[in-house]
Amino acid sequence: MMVLPDSARTVVESGRLAHLVTLNVDGTPQVSCAWIALDGGDLVMMHTAEHVKVRNLRRDPRVVVSIESDQRSEGGPHPSFQFYLVVYGTATVIEGVAPDLAPLICAKYGAAPPPNVPPGYVTRITVDRVGGVGPWVA
Amino acid sequence: MMVLPDSARTVVESGRLAHLVTLNVDGTPQVSCAWIALDGGDLVMMHTAEHVKVRNLRRDPRVVVSIESDQRSEGGPHPSFQFYLVVYGTATVIEGVAPDLAPLICAKYGAAPPPNVPPGYVTRITVDRVGGVGPWVA
Repeated sequence: MMVLPDSARTVVESGRLAHLVTLNVDGTPQVSCAWIALDGGDLVMMHTAEHVKVRNLRRDPRVVVSIESDQRSEGGPHPSFQFYLVVYGTATVIEGVAPDLAPLICAKYGAAPPPNVPPGYVTRITVDRVGGVGPWVA
Repeated sequence: MMVLPDSARTVVESGRLAHLVTLNVDGTPQVSCAWIALDGGDLVMMHTAEHVKVRNLRRDPRVVVSIESDQRSEGGPHPSFQFYLVVYGTATVIEGVAPDLAPLICAKYGAAPPPNVPPGYVTRITVDRVGGVGPWVA
């Protein structure tokens, strides 16, 4: 487990889509995008139903999240390349608490929480390491 | 193999980052972002060196690419959710032809090709299926 640097926390909380990678039963990657927020040192996402990604994470908690940054490199090995954050982590899926998290997550994306959020699922991701291109991999 | 619908081709060619998922030796996913373009019906990327992603793709050609769209949903199951394209494909890595592809790819991102592109590698991805949220999964 690692503590996310502030530069990476800013990207997670910026209201950009999180590209979530989970592993299917046959070992192939599955990708979907979702809204994301921080809760303490963890990344959190909500799901209204038991989508494939939720079933995958309940079986295999190894997860990767990538999020684009609004900033770009100046010079260096990637001149004028858009920064992006990659978080490698371990997921825990918690059932029935989507309504608790909805206000926090929706606020990050400038949306009002829907009136009737189903119990759903929350994925909580502890950070193992970070990658990508940006100051968090200095 | 499938033919990408025009709506998906537009996203690939829009100059947004491609989130590329490959598989490490231990089966965990590896994610990095790269510039992308279309060449006929295939997605193409260039790499200046034999990065982890290149080694991964040479060993295991199963690949996923996700790209954000500039468009959003109106109503439906994902109200005001940003569209994104997911391409599940099979990769072929070709050695030494990065300079041939550099002008095409750099142009998509409004950049001039660097003066001395090393031989590098090109990844060519044939499309097996698409996912995500957008008109390409209607």
